[in-house]
Amino acid sequence: MKINQFATITTDYHTQLIELERVGFKTNTIGAKQRLAAYLEKVYWQQQQTGSLQEQEAQLLATPTQTMASFLASKAPLTPTIFALLSLQLLGFLPWDDFDPNHPQTSRKNLGLAPIEMVTTETDVARAWYQLLTTHTRFGLTYLDHLASQGYFTQPHFRQNQQLFFNGKAQATFQTNAFHHELVYVPTDVDTDGDGLLDLIRVEITRPTSSVPVPAVYTASPYDQGTNDRYGEQLTHQVDVPLTRKQPAQHHHQPFQPLPRKAKSPVTEPATSQTLQCPPPHPGYTLNDYLLPRGFASIYAAGIGTIDSDGLQTCGDPAQTNATIAVIEWLHGDRPAFVSKNRKQAVAADWCNGNVAMTGRSYLGTLAIAAATTGVPGLKTIIPEAAISSWYDYYRENGLVVAPGGFQGEDCDVLAAETFSRRQRPGDYLKVQTAFEQELADLQQGQDRTSGSYNQFWDDRNYRNHLQQIKCDVLLVHGLNDENVKLKNPAALWAGLKDLPISKKLILHQGQHVYLNNFPSFDFTDIVNLWLSNKLYQCDNHVDQALPTVIVQDNLLPETWETRPNWLTAPQKSLPLSFNHASFHNEIEPATFKFYCQNPERWKTDLWNLSDDRLANQRVTALIPHKTGTINGIPRLELTLSSSQPLGLISAMLLDYGEAHRLTTQPTKLMPNGMPLGYRWYTDNLFEFTLAQQPSAAHLIARGHLNLQNRISADQDQNLIANQFYHVELPLQPTYYHLLAERKLVVILFSTDFQMTIRGNQAITYQLQPQASRLILPWQTD
Amino acid sequence: MKINQFATITTDYHTQLIELERVGFKTNTIGAKQRLAAYLEKVYWQQQQTGSLQEQEAQLLATPTQTMASFLASKAPLTPTIFALLSLQLLGFLPWDDFDPNHPQTSRKNLGLAPIEMVTTETDVARAWYQLLTTHTRFGLTYLDHLASQGYFTQPHFRQNQQLFFNGKAQATFQTNAFHHELVYVPTDVDTDGDGLLDLIRVEITRPTSSVPVPAVYTASPYDQGTNDRYGEQLTHQVDVPLTRKQPAQHHHQPFQPLPRKAKSPVTEPATSQTLQCPPPHPGYTLNDYLLPRGFASIYAAGIGTIDSDGLQTCGDPAQTNATIAVIEWLHGDRPAFVSKNRKQAVAADWCNGNVAMTGRSYLGTLAIAAATTGVPGLKTIIPEAAISSWYDYYRENGLVVAPGGFQGEDCDVLAAETFSRRQRPGDYLKVQTAFEQELADLQQGQDRTSGSYNQFWDDRNYRNHLQQIKCDVLLVHGLNDENVKLKNPAALWAGLKDLPISKKLILHQGQHVYLNNFPSFDFTDIVNLWLSNKLYQCDNHVDQALPTVIVQDNLLPETWETRPNWLTAPQKSLPLSFNHASFHNEIEPATFKFYCQNPERWKTDLWNLSDDRLANQRVTALIPHKTGTINGIPRLELTLSSSQPLGLISAMLLDYGEAHRLTTQPTKLMPNGMPLGYRWYTDNLFEFTLAQQPSAAHLIARGHLNLQNRISADQDQNLIANQFYHVELPLQPTYYHLLAERKLVVILFSTDFQMTIRGNQAITYQLQPQASRLILPWQTD
Repeated sequence: MKINQFATITTDYHTQLIELERVGFKTNTIGAKQRLAAYLEKVYWQQQQTGSLQEQEAQLLATPTQTMASFLASKAPLTPTIFALLSLQLLGFLPWDDFDPNHPQTSRKNLGLAPIEMVTTETDVARAWYQLLTTHTRFGLTYLDHLASQGYFTQPHFRQNQQLFFNGKAQATFQTNAFHHELVYVPTDVDTDGDGLLDLIRVEITRPTSSVPVPAVYTASPYDQGTNDRYGEQLTHQVDVPLTRKQPAQHHHQPFQPLPRKAKSPVTEPATSQTLQCPPPHPGYTLNDYLLPRGFASIYAAGIGTIDSDGLQTCGDPAQTNATIAVIEWLHGDRPAFVSKNRKQAVAADWCNGNVAMTGRSYLGTLAIAAATTGVPGLKTIIPEAAISSWYDYYRENGLVVAPGGFQGEDCDVLAAETFSRRQRPGDYLKVQTAFEQELADLQQGQDRTSGSYNQFWDDRNYRNHLQQIKCDVLLVHGLNDENVKLKNPAALWAGLKDLPISKKLILHQGQHVYLNNFPSFDFTDIVNLWLSNKLYQCDNHVDQALPTVIVQDNLLPETWETRPNWLTAPQKSLPLSFNHASFHNEIEPATFKFYCQNPERWKTDLWNLSDDRLANQRVTALIPHKTGTINGIPRLELTLSSSQPLGLISAMLLDYGEAHRLTTQPTKLMPNGMPLGYRWYTDNLFEFTLAQQPSAAHLIARGHLNLQNRISADQDQNLIANQFYHVELPLQPTYYHLLAERKLVVILFSTDFQMTIRGNQAITYQLQPQASRLILPWQTD
Repeated sequence: MKINQFATITTDYHTQLIELERVGFKTNTIGAKQRLAAYLEKVYWQQQQTGSLQEQEAQLLATPTQTMASFLASKAPLTPTIFALLSLQLLGFLPWDDFDPNHPQTSRKNLGLAPIEMVTTETDVARAWYQLLTTHTRFGLTYLDHLASQGYFTQPHFRQNQQLFFNGKAQATFQTNAFHHELVYVPTDVDTDGDGLLDLIRVEITRPTSSVPVPAVYTASPYDQGTNDRYGEQLTHQVDVPLTRKQPAQHHHQPFQPLPRKAKSPVTEPATSQTLQCPPPHPGYTLNDYLLPRGFASIYAAGIGTIDSDGLQTCGDPAQTNATIAVIEWLHGDRPAFVSKNRKQAVAADWCNGNVAMTGRSYLGTLAIAAATTGVPGLKTIIPEAAISSWYDYYRENGLVVAPGGFQGEDCDVLAAETFSRRQRPGDYLKVQTAFEQELADLQQGQDRTSGSYNQFWDDRNYRNHLQQIKCDVLLVHGLNDENVKLKNPAALWAGLKDLPISKKLILHQGQHVYLNNFPSFDFTDIVNLWLSNKLYQCDNHVDQALPTVIVQDNLLPETWETRPNWLTAPQKSLPLSFNHASFHNEIEPATFKFYCQNPERWKTDLWNLSDDRLANQRVTALIPHKTGTINGIPRLELTLSSSQPLGLISAMLLDYGEAHRLTTQPTKLMPNGMPLGYRWYTDNLFEFTLAQQPSAAHLIARGHLNLQNRISADQDQNLIANQFYHVELPLQPTYYHLLAERKLVVILFSTDFQMTIRGNQAITYQLQPQASRLILPWQTD
């Protein structure tokens, strides 16, 4: 086990004393040992009431042969080693498993914890205790969080339901059983279902009791009211279809015009605060659940086209964005909401301080990006995890239909149908069935699966067109092994934010398409807390300076998270590609083709098995000599090749090749319910990316796909003459990858990607001019 | 989806009217349609407050082309079809996926729901509505439970925190935010750690606020304060050791003498009810979480040898039983408890009505059985799931060391070490390390892995020795595919309960070692509710008559649960065994041996692959002709065989052979957090045993193992002469298995079971007299 903490801020001794008093550790005791004893009494406040404090202290070791109770009763002086051993026990680490009672300082070091240096005076002890309170336990949160989850802040000398900061972070002082659960309906500026009324959307609120207004953390999730899984399956597209030749064309697209904001009429009459009970949101968005007892309201809206809301699902278009931000306008006091769908009784968010953050993964984080690009007032920051920044980069690539990993045949229409939960209320569906079927037809036409080109439809769904509107700060999170929302999404967004006058931070982890809230090795929740305490509560914690710009989890060593100056910044290195053949075919024998269509994972295994010749004619490979170093940016292939037909599709993978125990990209569950998010409140499961028990033969660094008719750009369909050589550039997905010299770096070039592209099994042969092929690698030597 | 409900009781119309009134459905409206409208208003009580009732009714269909709102405003009469369509929507089923809006009555039938027959008068509607409230939704609970989870019982006209029964079951009327969380220390009658003081055990209580005493559901879980996983791994025994010859011996064992109960001094002074806050138990024992808002307190104790308790882990011995029931004596008013470990301030369980049930799976259920066999006053019923009734049947079999499935090398000492969580408090551990190491040595000697015979140690851990002491009713639950706690445990217990004057019921499901609390196809929680409402609250629901004695989940059809008159009762059918060879060897080639040791699942696959001859010399097989029918009881092999050495180990498996899509024995997660256990309270994930997506070649019906030196009994080690033929009987594990005529029934006989027995790879050959081999099958033809 190794702890990496980035969100502890440096404070001077004076501040530490004030903060220690604030959380109940008075500093009037004289003498180092006496002060430690006084602090321990506070930690065992429950036992103190019943006189069994000493029993608890007798369960702790001061030295390998003496209990804490016995040590405190003795005349022996406090030493750093004793404090170190005590700290490991208080932090919940397991003796013999996590630490060695005979070597507590070494154990702390191995765990990634700072050494205990001096505990000679009471001042030293106060400093060390301050540090202990900010240190992570075995359970993914700080020791002070641990105390809070035991009910520490329910003691009478703390003021309930009042904001309290410690080391720059909001503490869990809000009573979970005093939360308000409310339901309102926010009118938007769009009428997507064409019923003549502006669409209302259902908004669910859970907020702490507080004497002063609190900020809001808003998660827009189209999935939240249920999904139509079978309907989606029925609409899923057949992908075993041939690539077709496109007529040369330039797809023009109009510059983006934001939809007008109509309603700007906040509630001016005395706000009617009558609101409704509703069950609390299901646990699952555990980041929001963590934030709630710390004084941040949780707001959920599934948006247009979902149960109890109006409108249609439009899959990322400007109307959806427009509807999404109506909720922020309500929270900011710029728009009314209603207590029911009859739009009669208005209600103000008078409990809200007007500061809003948006959170969420995947589609949820995508809507956070969409909202940020409107510059809507009140939105102070977004924390998108694994989010889309342009829908073209989700469902298309370089003029091709390319599926999100694991979702062959999905497209905008399928996603709209899946999330159109109004269909689950059949009386409601009666009214909008015709309109939604028309919407589906429009989506199908606009997304244009036959061309795969970038057109007006996709341009409308490219949030990066209007990044300059972003006024809020951005904390961006993405998994380097995310093949669902591919890395181009965060990379292009990150590059686009570069010159904006906002604060921006980036966290890259080694997972797939997963949340990062519950990893003991990394203090993600603390980072979010520090960030939001500043952005929404104006806590003066200097988070913009305190947090590194980029944090990257290492792909070689487990539980290792490192500060990096930037992403996508390595110098380009041009490397010759010596392919093993000068040509490759697309077509394979029909029975094998069918087998691979049904088992695309097996296709990948066979493709990667370079000593197996089953797919030897369908690929060319090149071995790239290299040293130990890091790929930091977008790897590109420069190729000169021809197709035997007037159309063509090429795919490439860059592999870290060689048997090794690598990190799993799906997190391993360490402990169910191990992470307590508050006192008498939800828990989260503890996870970690661990080294796989079995060695793997290779690991994908990046892949890419290109329609040879879109060799200039995705919106320009060019002619392709059969058997004529063209110089093309094939960009792979961006990455950050630490490569050892002893592993092989391999490029595989092929046509059909059974996991992602359409699969026509067409008889096409591609010829290469090997001397003209190069790999352009963003490379930095360690 | 298919719903099977066993816990709805038949009530007359008069009772139904009283109960409908009790849960807020007044019956004073005249006219069928009017009464339905009045009921719907109650269901949408939240919307009624804000005037949007009609909006909700407009989301429902009355007919495929008319909403409920429009129907109610019309003059059209109510029909059974309209009520049926309405009911499916209210129950949360999905249009088009779960039901066809054009054929609601057929849809109800397909879902396993009773038809809606007559809704002509308001009386008909009241009856149909009563039925609706007791019907299960898509989410594994009744419609009334669904309303309660939305806050229905928080309406002012209901009395909070007061018991309310509907259809014989306790309803969720207790406020979850008014629960009391307490901690006490109960003194036991044992001093297992030998410190001169009777061991105290820590008891955690969560109980509803109530004006009258409530009953308690007690779960004794040695795992609950944490486990020493690495310590357990270190102690795990090497199983790649040879079988050794035993000297002939008869292992005598003393008849069981219950340990004396010493302390019978309840709190006689005015009870000091000062108790402590503690965090609520982690969600996980969801059955208890379901029961809490329904008026049943939850009690957890990890018992002797765990954090914050005294004593040692003794793995199932009489001292552990003795300590376990001390908690019941406290709850029943027969014993004091203390507010802290200093034993100064006593506290009475004055909130408890003295009626206690015990619940839990595996070791937890095992301690429930242990407690029941003491006849302790106050214990009214136990609900053991997948529990051990004799530890010999967990770690041993017929004179052999035989592991629980998946836990090769585990034994009593390993389990004691794993659960001895006092080791995680190193100061506390200092005091008891010597005593615990002695305890481990005693366990190692007593369990005697070299002989595998039944001795005094195991007899002390055989709860079936004193079944006649059981005074409480028993609801027994076990998975027919449980290879961890094998089927002999519930079967021998069930057989032993036969003549006791108690009420007993049995549920057999198709799972492995799993809980059964959250399957939409089966109303297990209702059954428990009906059972406990009667046993602990004396609700006169006639549960003993209403519930079938035995419920068995079918192994062929998914989501099919059937009433059966009994288990283990089929007539014995003697069938000749025509083995394919007359001998088999134990030894295999060393590399293969090593591979199978590391991959015991692969060994099983190869053993079962009868067309593969890799293990052809290590097995003999026989095909049993049969018709469609059911194996109900203990299959036995009668064999005449010899061993080439003066020792021997034989194993057998009975297989359902033939490619088929079979039920998975691990449940499939249908919906995370899909099952709400109360209003603003925990949720459970919804699971189901579903048909596997891939066909399987065979399924294990039962297996068994025998030491040839224990051919008479496990406590009698007999001489075995090499190459001499003996007649032996090899009982397999009991089962209930529905077998189709078109599947093959196959017996495989072999020696080393890589998954369960020791693995010596000894050069032993077994000879059979085929004409003298028979399978005795408890068989009933369908």
